[in-house]
Amino acid sequence: MKDFEFYNPVKILFGKDQLEKIGDLVPAEKKILLLYGGGSIKKNGVYEGIINALKDRDIVEFKGIEPNPTYETCMNAVDLIKKEKVEYLLAAGGGSVIDATKFIAAAVSYEEGDPWEILSKGKEIKASIPFADILTLPATGTEMNKNAVISRKSTNEKLAFSSPYSFPQFSVLLPEAAGTLPKEQVANGVVDAFVHVIEQYLTYPVNAPLQDRFAESILKTLIEEGPKTYKNPKDYESMSNLMWSATMALNGIIKAGVPEDWSVHDIGHELTAFHNIDHARTLAIVLPGIWHVLKEEKKDKLVQYGERVWNITEGTDDERAEKAIDRTVEFFESLGVKTKFSDYGIPAETIDKIVDRFKKRGLIFGIGDRKLVKPGVIRQALEDRL
Amino acid sequence: MKDFEFYNPVKILFGKDQLEKIGDLVPAEKKILLLYGGGSIKKNGVYEGIINALKDRDIVEFKGIEPNPTYETCMNAVDLIKKEKVEYLLAAGGGSVIDATKFIAAAVSYEEGDPWEILSKGKEIKASIPFADILTLPATGTEMNKNAVISRKSTNEKLAFSSPYSFPQFSVLLPEAAGTLPKEQVANGVVDAFVHVIEQYLTYPVNAPLQDRFAESILKTLIEEGPKTYKNPKDYESMSNLMWSATMALNGIIKAGVPEDWSVHDIGHELTAFHNIDHARTLAIVLPGIWHVLKEEKKDKLVQYGERVWNITEGTDDERAEKAIDRTVEFFESLGVKTKFSDYGIPAETIDKIVDRFKKRGLIFGIGDRKLVKPGVIRQALEDRL
Repeated sequence: MKDFEFYNPVKILFGKDQLEKIGDLVPAEKKILLLYGGGSIKKNGVYEGIINALKDRDIVEFKGIEPNPTYETCMNAVDLIKKEKVEYLLAAGGGSVIDATKFIAAAVSYEEGDPWEILSKGKEIKASIPFADILTLPATGTEMNKNAVISRKSTNEKLAFSSPYSFPQFSVLLPEAAGTLPKEQVANGVVDAFVHVIEQYLTYPVNAPLQDRFAESILKTLIEEGPKTYKNPKDYESMSNLMWSATMALNGIIKAGVPEDWSVHDIGHELTAFHNIDHARTLAIVLPGIWHVLKEEKKDKLVQYGERVWNITEGTDDERAEKAIDRTVEFFESLGVKTKFSDYGIPAETIDKIVDRFKKRGLIFGIGDRKLVKPGVIRQALEDRL
Repeated sequence: MKDFEFYNPVKILFGKDQLEKIGDLVPAEKKILLLYGGGSIKKNGVYEGIINALKDRDIVEFKGIEPNPTYETCMNAVDLIKKEKVEYLLAAGGGSVIDATKFIAAAVSYEEGDPWEILSKGKEIKASIPFADILTLPATGTEMNKNAVISRKSTNEKLAFSSPYSFPQFSVLLPEAAGTLPKEQVANGVVDAFVHVIEQYLTYPVNAPLQDRFAESILKTLIEEGPKTYKNPKDYESMSNLMWSATMALNGIIKAGVPEDWSVHDIGHELTAFHNIDHARTLAIVLPGIWHVLKEEKKDKLVQYGERVWNITEGTDDERAEKAIDRTVEFFESLGVKTKFSDYGIPAETIDKIVDRFKKRGLIFGIGDRKLVKPGVIRQALEDRL
């Protein structure tokens, strides 16, 4: 196991009848901005629940935060906050709304220059206005971490930041609200959480058996509960299990003491940036490509993954690794999540564009847990997915 | 899954070269009380590391906190804190020192009466002076939770309290220091962590597959790593895995959304109170007794435990449950932790005394996850262990 630091102060409220508690959690005297997306919270009762719980509070609203939230939209919210002198942000919706809120909270307090630098140059933030969230979509895990990903329309970029100031004060997890999601979004959530685990698990071994088993626990639960929620999002018990799995997938627990990869995410973000493909679907495309190209380097862990998660116990190590990749692809496809460029009409030329972009960013030393993912590997991995 | 709230703000620093960081974590201006036990920290380099990291700070010391820390000792520390106007407590050692520090920190701030009421009457505390700890012994999990157990010599009582004010601000986990422990203490730690998991896992099923798998992950890791650390405490990698497993066993993660039991602990505490037996050893005595008596009621989960943790896949459910209990007893015994009254010279009369004590406390409705543990069950369970 590697040395590590772990810190996660997010308070979680999970289940039914949790919304009414937020009245005690949001400071009484502060002016609140309620942020949400396309308005699904007005159909599933969440909006009403929030307003009831916060009656008599001074609330302003900002709606219309899009999937893959944009810098442009965020900056409109920043303007509103400054104009209205808002002191507390409350996000309601899925990962996009929460990620946007994290960036907005940071950007309002950023006085060192253009807030875009937080993303483009990794400038550290030194403050953030307090925020919390109501989660209605299990997927990204942002409800219990300090990370966010923001896109910029004008430049087709999608970039991440992370800061100890960017933990939500609390997150209310509502499996019942998630039951009203379209099944495609449920499928995205399952795949997103799955690949989050993979990026922290399918790395070089460091004798961390507990972390490995925790990761495998989440994967097995996603494999078991994911199809049930895809078939019937209103299956409350399965949705609860999916939702908690997605949160645990990216709250820091499984990465404590082990190497991380994240190259699949880095490459996937470019497919979203160029073609606006759902985040989870980009991961489903890229992951098998990376695994095929780096099969030798990742073989030990692929074999362990195949055996413990998919019960693959026969064949040579090479065959077992290959079978583990196949089973993963089949799992994604069984949820209606396609894994090839052609499924999405992505042209082969996009590969050049993506490789060029990584080159321009100075990707000489490679990304991933062992810095093996260099431009040539990215090209091969994407060519594998045509 | 049941509805739940989860909150754990403890910062963890794990591994080598962590001690030097505490200079940045302990507020510079505060007068510090360093609390420790019998002085092992002076032999394993931890004391020196602390003093080096906190050079130029105003530090007072309080040493001699005993295993199963007593109210009497704690109150001496409270007197010292008041006299010296100490503002920050730093515990260094195992669970006893940390538990004592939690109680001391609460008692200093308790102005509503005799601090013993926090334990005896469950009086809520409303403040605590800040504290942190350096952990040198994997076992109790107190380094990452808000609970503590304190004994009172004068009345032979051992009681617990829990408060949101009683989270350590940070905990430094030092597997290297744990490598200097006597092997009996390592064995105690393995068994203690094991039974902590059991009390949150071997309860009635609520369709919480992730929590079940996490619990089984910790149990399997303890079964794998425990014997290695018992054989050779200086095996750094195994000790690291044991230490993190013990922390994860009782930091709230595996109990989120599931029922808890704790009857084995409640009964075990009485064996410590009457005969001063190591906490872990009392659990090893009581657990098989409770399982034998409640085998029918706990059968489903015992079978799952047997299959997933011990690979017991043959026989009737009854045989599998029985085998799971046997394997558990064998595991404890393999670590030199005996499981019978006779192994410790405990007289049979102690059973009457313990049952009487529970009766006097008004144990009409029973303890445990389904309130099944009433005086009659306690008697049977202990008679099973003669």
